[in-house]
Parts: sequence; structure tokens; C-alpha cells
Amino acid sequence: MRGMADKSLEVNLECVNDYSYLYEPTPEQRENIEKITREVISKINEVIEELGLRGVIREVSVQGSFARDTWLPEDTDVDVFLLFDKSFDFEQMRKMTELISGKVAVKLGASIETRFASHPYYVIGFNRVEVEIVPAYKIEDIREMRTAVDRTPFHTSYITSSLLRKPWLKKEIRVLKVLLKRLGIYGAELEVRGFSGYLSEVLVIAYDGLVPLLEAASRWIPWKVLIPHDAPRSLIGTAPLIVLDPVDLRRNAAAAVGLEQLSKFIAFSKIFVENPEILCCMLEGKREVPDYMLDENIIILRLLSHPPLSDDALAGKLRRILDSTRNTLERNGFNVLRGLMVHARRDFFLVFQLETSVLPPLEKKIGPPVWHTNSKNFLRKWASHTPAPFIDGDRWVVISERKIRKAEEVIMNALKVYKGFEWEIMRGEESYWKIAEDEYREIKGVLAGSEIWIYCLKKYVSGHKL
Amino acid sequence: MRGMADKSLEVNLECVNDYSYLYEPTPEQRENIEKITREVISKINEVIEELGLRGVIREVSVQGSFARDTWLPEDTDVDVFLLFDKSFDFEQMRKMTELISGKVAVKLGASIETRFASHPYYVIGFNRVEVEIVPAYKIEDIREMRTAVDRTPFHTSYITSSLLRKPWLKKEIRVLKVLLKRLGIYGAELEVRGFSGYLSEVLVIAYDGLVPLLEAASRWIPWKVLIPHDAPRSLIGTAPLIVLDPVDLRRNAAAAVGLEQLSKFIAFSKIFVENPEILCCMLEGKREVPDYMLDENIIILRLLSHPPLSDDALAGKLRRILDSTRNTLERNGFNVLRGLMVHARRDFFLVFQLETSVLPPLEKKIGPPVWHTNSKNFLRKWASHTPAPFIDGDRWVVISERKIRKAEEVIMNALKVYKGFEWEIMRGEESYWKIAEDEYREIKGVLAGSEIWIYCLKKYVSGHKL
Repeated sequence: MRGMADKSLEVNLECVNDYSYLYEPTPEQRENIEKITREVISKINEVIEELGLRGVIREVSVQGSFARDTWLPEDTDVDVFLLFDKSFDFEQMRKMTELISGKVAVKLGASIETRFASHPYYVIGFNRVEVEIVPAYKIEDIREMRTAVDRTPFHTSYITSSLLRKPWLKKEIRVLKVLLKRLGIYGAELEVRGFSGYLSEVLVIAYDGLVPLLEAASRWIPWKVLIPHDAPRSLIGTAPLIVLDPVDLRRNAAAAVGLEQLSKFIAFSKIFVENPEILCCMLEGKREVPDYMLDENIIILRLLSHPPLSDDALAGKLRRILDSTRNTLERNGFNVLRGLMVHARRDFFLVFQLETSVLPPLEKKIGPPVWHTNSKNFLRKWASHTPAPFIDGDRWVVISERKIRKAEEVIMNALKVYKGFEWEIMRGEESYWKIAEDEYREIKGVLAGSEIWIYCLKKYVSGHKL
Repeated sequence: MRGMADKSLEVNLECVNDYSYLYEPTPEQRENIEKITREVISKINEVIEELGLRGVIREVSVQGSFARDTWLPEDTDVDVFLLFDKSFDFEQMRKMTELISGKVAVKLGASIETRFASHPYYVIGFNRVEVEIVPAYKIEDIREMRTAVDRTPFHTSYITSSLLRKPWLKKEIRVLKVLLKRLGIYGAELEVRGFSGYLSEVLVIAYDGLVPLLEAASRWIPWKVLIPHDAPRSLIGTAPLIVLDPVDLRRNAAAAVGLEQLSKFIAFSKIFVENPEILCCMLEGKREVPDYMLDENIIILRLLSHPPLSDDALAGKLRRILDSTRNTLERNGFNVLRGLMVHARRDFFLVFQLETSVLPPLEKKIGPPVWHTNSKNFLRKWASHTPAPFIDGDRWVVISERKIRKAEEVIMNALKVYKGFEWEIMRGEESYWKIAEDEYREIKGVLAGSEIWIYCLKKYVSGHKL
């Protein structure tokens, strides 16, 4: 295992092998998925023949982590791309794919579902494997791209050919993916804003191994990371992490990675270089849920209903609602200790932990400088107030009764802007009675810090180790 | 009254005359003080003869507002300067003045008291008039100055000669002084940090009247006022208000004026130019004490004992204690609505009105950025904490129990630094039982805003007038 050859890090080798069951698919799993994929592709080809679309669909091919052999046993979804001739009409392409997928599902007696990314695709659920049928254009050069997914076959061939030269990196990519999952930062979707599968592969290949990647990341500073190092420096500051896509140098393959998510990766890497055993702890995957009381200063919002949106769009929207509600709370004088989005079972929760959920009766209103023309209006409004307005520095100031003292009121006002969203609002202790036990436990766990990596942090950092 | 000739401001003329008793000494008062002053000076000359000091003391002369005829009837103190030959030893000068003053007091059967400004002077209390005997050097040119008060005779002759040319300005100076008193910003001492008598005179003379002065002040911006306009612009920003001393252009005659005090003057001036009647209201001098509840978020400190300090030094020190205690409160998470120094009867009080006097149990501790080496120490300390540390943006953050929640504790810690000061600390309601009624009423009045100018503000600004 070349990437992990560093003497000081040999300790990892063993544990990485010990926990290999977590990330290496068994031959049976592999066999099963391959069989299913073959079956689906064969039905697709049948349908293409039946519909006389052979001239239009240039290729039916497997893409994604399954094609690259970097998939995790728990991720049993396969991407099958229908690559259309680039002259074909976009709307027609979508319709044809829907038609083909529907007919394939009937032939297989399988379920079918429509999902949305940049454009719709179709998911056939068959023997516990999800086969995603994705339409794209067959292009020869990346610059001919018409839809975002046209790039995927280039990714597949770049990764495949890189791994053909260094097959041992597959294992290290799988370890990274498990690690990112445990850190809660795997996946580019808006709910996660983490590292995509492809980005994980590119990073391990770029650093020639997981350990060199973690060593480099331990020195990263958000907004200042540029990979490769000879990329144009003008890009610095355009995103917390910049990793040029090897198949399309105009694109930041890490554009989806959020600041917090990157910071978590950096934080882990820093601990790792001094305590490499923490990687074993992460792969072992133990966690503990410390006891934590939900008190009246924790306010929980359960999403009851929302406008029709794809999962990803919904997650993005909820994150924006979280941020704006948090800002409104702060502007109204509340100290927000934490604002969290928790996705427990099918329910979405926004959780605000406040320093206090009821503010004191009086507040200081800072008015204009005495020399400013606005001071007229301020005085007109406040001159008769008791206590009288006074001057602090060069500004008019008044101590007045706070209009809204309860956080719930501020939150409800802030949420009014978002039409079509309905919420149930509850204080910490109440939620015990109002939501299902496992959801309550999940929220309590998130608040207490029950993530695996926190468990490992305690184990390896607390006291003396670091 | 030339300075008040502006058409729109004629309304002032009448009220200024109506309230003239407030600022114009009666012939009897004038007579009385002149008589006493003559008596004191004659005794001083007797003593000088007896001690054979005629060769050393070049002149005995009356200085200050009495000499300039700009004094207010309520201010019955007269400055008598002993002007020593400039070759005379400083320490000897001090001793001789003490000796002379003592002998004069004995001859008059009057009380005597020592006070301190830049150097000691002696106050003879005689028939309800205070005669201050001040030693200084007799110099021909301001550049020969040896002590700060050597400048005073130059001030007197500058003002006297200016007023000889425009005697009507005396009345306007007196109105300004009354106005400044009502605004609580008359006097250069550290307790007030306002406008000295001399500065008031210089300003009225410079603007050729009170109304043009107020009109100009209504356009002033603190830190940007330079008088005269052709003074070196490099001085701007060295003090909130810069007024070059006409007798010593190296000196800012307004150096003692604080930002808040200047702002109050500007604020009043702005209201005055639109509602000149407010000046009548100020001269009338009515005030009201609105009812105001002192609650538990108002913390009152009574100064019980302090190191030996002159009044002025004590006031300055207390203001610094006020500011630093306020900063400590803010740094510890308290929102300070107001911090006040109240001098009621012989007692000094520091009063803090807080948004709340008890903080919530939890606080957010913002740690270092995850990529910073300090994050090691932060994690070593907090990794085992519940709730676990988490990442916000690119920083480590922990929610922890607040160590000090009570404002009193923070205040007591902050005050420990000041050796020799002893305090009694009480919450608002308690003080009703713990301090004298008139002191309680004074503090309540300051908090509610019972100053005369606030009464006038309400009368002329509130609702529609402004």
C-alpha cells in the first residue's frame, strides 16, 4: 500500500485492514450488482431496438463509482447513461428516456421513480439495487458540453485510467469515502455541501494516496487552497476549496464544499497527523450519545408541509431559511448559540439553541449622531419618552421597552416570508412529548455532539494525547 | 442687543429680558462683593508691607469673571492674584502665599481653606463670598510662562479690552453661562468636562454674540471644529472641539471639553435654530422629575472611602473607574444601557443600568480557526465537554457554562484593581432603604432624565414642533 508507506503512519495499515469489511464490497455483492446491471442494460437495448432509436442513442454505458470500482458496499446504486447524439433535441431526449425507463421497468417488473438533478432522471428499483437511468449527450470534446452530466463519461475514463495505473488507490479512495461519511461531509448535495465521490477520487489520485492527502489537508487554510498548485492564483478566494477538475480546467470540482465542511476535514486532518490512530477509531464507527437536557432555550421547528421541490432544492431552501431566521434572531437581540438543520427519518427540523429565549424588558436604541439631520426625527419620536433620550458619545440614545421579547415570535415573523412552508414550533422540553422517540434522540444527539468523530476526538485528544 | 438682531430670533429678546434676574447681578450684590474684595486686598497689602515683601510681589490684582464683569450672581467667588517677580523661587512663592493668606484671614476673622489646581491656592470665606488667593508669576510675554495660571492676567486683559469695545456682549456671555449650567456642561473640571468661563467668553466674542455662536454650533461636527477657521488644519482631530486661545495660539482653550458635553451643546444649538423659544424655557429653569422605577437591573455603587485626592483628581479617577468597570461588564457579556457618575450632596455614586443583571447559564465560547495551531490547546481543553465542541464557519466553538453570571460579581472584581477605594454595592430597589431620600431622588432623576433641558426638549420638540 504505497500511499501509506510513511513510517510514522504504519499503525494505520493494520486497522485499515481490520475494518476492511466496512468499505470493500464482497465478491457476492459485486456479482449481484453486476448481474442486475447487465439485465437492465439488456432490457434497455431491447427497448431501444423496439422503438427504433438505435440511430439516436449512440451508447448505453455504466458510469459513476460502480464503473470506477470505487463504490462502497452500502451504496448500491448504479448509474446507467443513455448517450444521445448531440444533434438530438433536449426535450425529446428527456421524453425518450422517460419512455425507455418506463418500458424497462415493466419488462423487469420493477418500480420506477423520477428524480431531479440538473435535469430529470429515472430510478429503477430492482432486487434492492437502484439503477439510475440518466440521459446525456455523447460528445468528443468537453467544450461541446450541452448538459452538466455530459461531463460524467470524461470523469469515468479519467478515474478509470488513473486507477488502472495505480489500482492500490481504490482501497484508499474507499477509506476516504467512509471517513467523509463518518464526518458527515460526503456528498455534494445541498443538504450536505460536502465532498462528492468524484472529488474524493480526484484528491486521492492527486496526492497519490490518502495519507499524503490528509497530511496536506492538515496545512490547508480555507479560501486559500488551490489544487493543483500551478493553477491560476487568481482563483484563490472564489471558494473555500478549489480543486480544478482534471477533465475540465474551467471547473472547480470542489465548488459545492462549504466552509464548515472543509473546516471539519482540515480539523480532522490536523488531529490525524499527530494521532493517526484516530483513523482506526473513525473506521470502527463507534458512537455514544451523551445525555443532554433539551431546555426552554432550545427551539425546535418541525417542517409540516412545503411547496413541491426536489429533495436537493428543498435542502438548499431549508438551509437558507435556517440562515435567514438565525440572522433575524441576532438582529433582534438574541444570541444564537447554534442553528442546526436536522433530517431525522422523513422529517426536517430546524433547531435553534439560544442563550436565552426571552429577552430582558428594556433595550438600548442607538440613534443618529447629534449633528446629523436625522436627529430631528429621532427626537420627534422619543423626546417625551421616559426615561428621556440622552447622549452617549456623539449619538442620541434611548432606553425603550422591547417590542418583541420572545424568540418564538421573532421566528414566526421571520418564517412568514417563506410561502407554502408550514411549521410546528416547540420549546426543547415540549418536543419530548411532541415528536417520535427516535427523532427526539437524533436531535438530542446532534445537540450533544454524538457524531462518531466527536467520540474519536474525545478518545484521542482529550487530556494529553494531542 | 446686536448679536441677537436676526429677525427670526427676535422672540428671544423678550424672554432673555424677562429672565434677566437669573444672570444679571443686582447693584447691591455687585457693591457687596466689591466692598469685600477691596477689604481683602487692603489687608493683603498690609501683610505684604509687614513682611517686607513689596520688592517680590509686583502686583495684587483681581482676575477671573469678576474682573471681567461676566460673573453670575450665584457665583460669588473672586480671584485675587499675587503676581510674584518671575525670578522668585516657586516653593518660596507657595509658602509666602500660604503665610499671607493665613495672616489676612486672621486679620479679617475669616475662615481659610487650601485647594489644589495646578498648584495650591487659598480660599478665604468672608461674608458669604469666597476670595481665592492665587500665586502666579508676573510675566510680560506669554512665552515666559512658568506656571499654568501665569496666563490668567493675559486672559483678563484680552476679555476686558474686547468687552470695552462691545459691552453688550457681557449680557450674552452671562446668558451663555446660564445656558451651559442648565445643560450641565459649564466648567472645565474633570467632573464636568465642559466649557470654562473663559472659553464661553472667547466663543461669544469670536462669534460676536450668542445667537451667531449657537447658529454656528448647530452646524458643528465633533472632532471637526476649528476656531478660528484659519487655524492650522493639522489640529483637526486632536480634540472634539478646538478653540485656539487668543492670547496663546499654541493652546486649545477647549481641550477640557468632552465629546458628550460638546455633543449636548451641538444638540441644543440644532434645536435652538428651529425653536428659538427653547432658550426661554432654559432660562426659566423649570424641571420635572418623572416617575421612574429603579429595578434590579440598576446597580448602584456608593463610594465609602477613597485615597486622599483633590476634588478634581478624585472626579477624574472616578470617571476612569466608571469607564473601565463598564468595559469589564461589556466584555463579560452584559449589555450596559447606561453608566453614570452621580454626585449627590457629598456622596459619589456610580450607577449602571444593565439590560439584565443576571446572564443566562450558557455562553458561546468562540475558539481559534480549525487551521490555527492554537486549536490544539482549545481541543485539549474542551474535547470531552458536553455538548461537544463544534465547527462554526472555520472556527472551533464550544457552548459552556458561564462562570460569572451576576453583574455584581463582575463589578466587584473590576473594582479590586483600585486600591484604597471602598464601595457599597446595591441593586436598584434596595437603594431606596439604603441611601438618603434626597440622594435617592437625585439618582432617580438622573436616570429618568429630569434635567431642565430635557423638560424643554419635551416642550419644544415632542410631537410636531421641530
